[in-house]
Amino acid sequence: MATNDNSIGVFDSGLGGLTVLREIHKRLPHENLVYFGDTARVPYGNKSSETIIRYSREITQFLLSHNIKAIVVACNTASSFALDAIREMTAIPVLGVIEPAIRSLTQKAKSQSVAGLIATRGTIQSGAYEKTLNLKRGTQKLVSQACPLLVPLIEEGYADSAAAEIILKDYLDPLSVSGAEYLILGCTHYPLIAPAIKRLYPQFTLIDSAEETALELARLLEERQILREKVESRIELFVSDMTKSMQNLKDLFFAGRVDRFEVARLTDD
Amino acid sequence: MATNDNSIGVFDSGLGGLTVLREIHKRLPHENLVYFGDTARVPYGNKSSETIIRYSREITQFLLSHNIKAIVVACNTASSFALDAIREMTAIPVLGVIEPAIRSLTQKAKSQSVAGLIATRGTIQSGAYEKTLNLKRGTQKLVSQACPLLVPLIEEGYADSAAAEIILKDYLDPLSVSGAEYLILGCTHYPLIAPAIKRLYPQFTLIDSAEETALELARLLEERQILREKVESRIELFVSDMTKSMQNLKDLFFAGRVDRFEVARLTDD
Repeated sequence: MATNDNSIGVFDSGLGGLTVLREIHKRLPHENLVYFGDTARVPYGNKSSETIIRYSREITQFLLSHNIKAIVVACNTASSFALDAIREMTAIPVLGVIEPAIRSLTQKAKSQSVAGLIATRGTIQSGAYEKTLNLKRGTQKLVSQACPLLVPLIEEGYADSAAAEIILKDYLDPLSVSGAEYLILGCTHYPLIAPAIKRLYPQFTLIDSAEETALELARLLEERQILREKVESRIELFVSDMTKSMQNLKDLFFAGRVDRFEVARLTDD
Repeated sequence: MATNDNSIGVFDSGLGGLTVLREIHKRLPHENLVYFGDTARVPYGNKSSETIIRYSREITQFLLSHNIKAIVVACNTASSFALDAIREMTAIPVLGVIEPAIRSLTQKAKSQSVAGLIATRGTIQSGAYEKTLNLKRGTQKLVSQACPLLVPLIEEGYADSAAAEIILKDYLDPLSVSGAEYLILGCTHYPLIAPAIKRLYPQFTLIDSAEETALELARLLEERQILREKVESRIELFVSDMTKSMQNLKDLFFAGRVDRFEVARLTDD
């Protein structure tokens, strides 16, 4: 079987995408990983699609200079707007986080069943999950809920608190009332609050974009026979701006070993 | 007595500064007000001082083109870094939000008394309130507490909720234990959560930057004899980016009459 030692490039608007990197590393521990977090320009959620596409192209250029064999766009906003633009720049596979989640839903859920979608306000307003479901001719029904407080609660270490529980109920009770059996975690931060959700809503089957994206990436590398077989692997993280709180966020989202964590300047930043 | 029909220019990184505008309008209802909120580049808190100075200069240029007689920098970060740069551009009075709060503290509080300061992480890390206290040779002791969750809670309408109460206790109990008698609200958003703070901590005398800045502005205009005496006044709001949630925030922070609310492009944006 053919193998390929090149790295997997992953990027996000900030550090939340490290939950995707974590899942990729769990499933593909032999792969070298290069991550870029655009911490100088985070968040992307409220910016125009033109700006998101420009930023995504700049980051893709950076990742392509690191000998990569695949790109994972670990950012819901960039996955909504920039996949085509990135695919125009390279022939290597490019994966977003939305398609894998929707694919998992259409495979697991009966037609006509109801799924809740929770995400940031930007992702919900983009309608990207609905569009992807329609493109895949899924017949499941999506009920959306913007959860703007979850990202700050998670980043401040409140994922498992009484305050988060109260706010989660405000957000998720309406989805429960709508008869949702599935719940798509449509934001890279949300895997960190999944334990609280599972405790409060055991009836929901969670669909975790990070997990599904890692699964899909593993399938794809196997199919194309470009997995890496060596045991030692490297994990490199780059950010466009570094502060102390970014160090802390890095540890929150990716507690594992990292071989390099430093600031990198994009060409057009 | 001399009068002056020119407007008062006010700016902030976003819409939180409208709490300052509200106080100015309450105290000086005859004055024409022009507000600029840099909603396309909000928040300023984690950006470098060079960037903050550049943005502040661009906004000052915009305000100066609107026939203004004074500038109020209703943003803690810009007040920390950009006052000198703005004063180099114009001879009209330029007021920040930090000095009026510190002046009020040194006037009200006995020497050696303890005051709590709550603000965003950026403002706390800048040390701007401590520096201003030292410059004014104040002998009061400041105990600082970053409250990163208060802005999102307020913006999402959670100021008066059980969840906010839990989080407020996490933030304010240590200040209470430190023996604070005064509490400086060091963020333009915080007047909206002041009722909850008063209920939970009746022992604190609150010092509201917005209120103190409006008071100081009124004193200054009176001293220079440039108050406006006509009855009809105009309130104009400009933002660098407009979304539906910005419309909602505008109403949250400034429920009063507004004669104009629109997007304005800065020269170098």
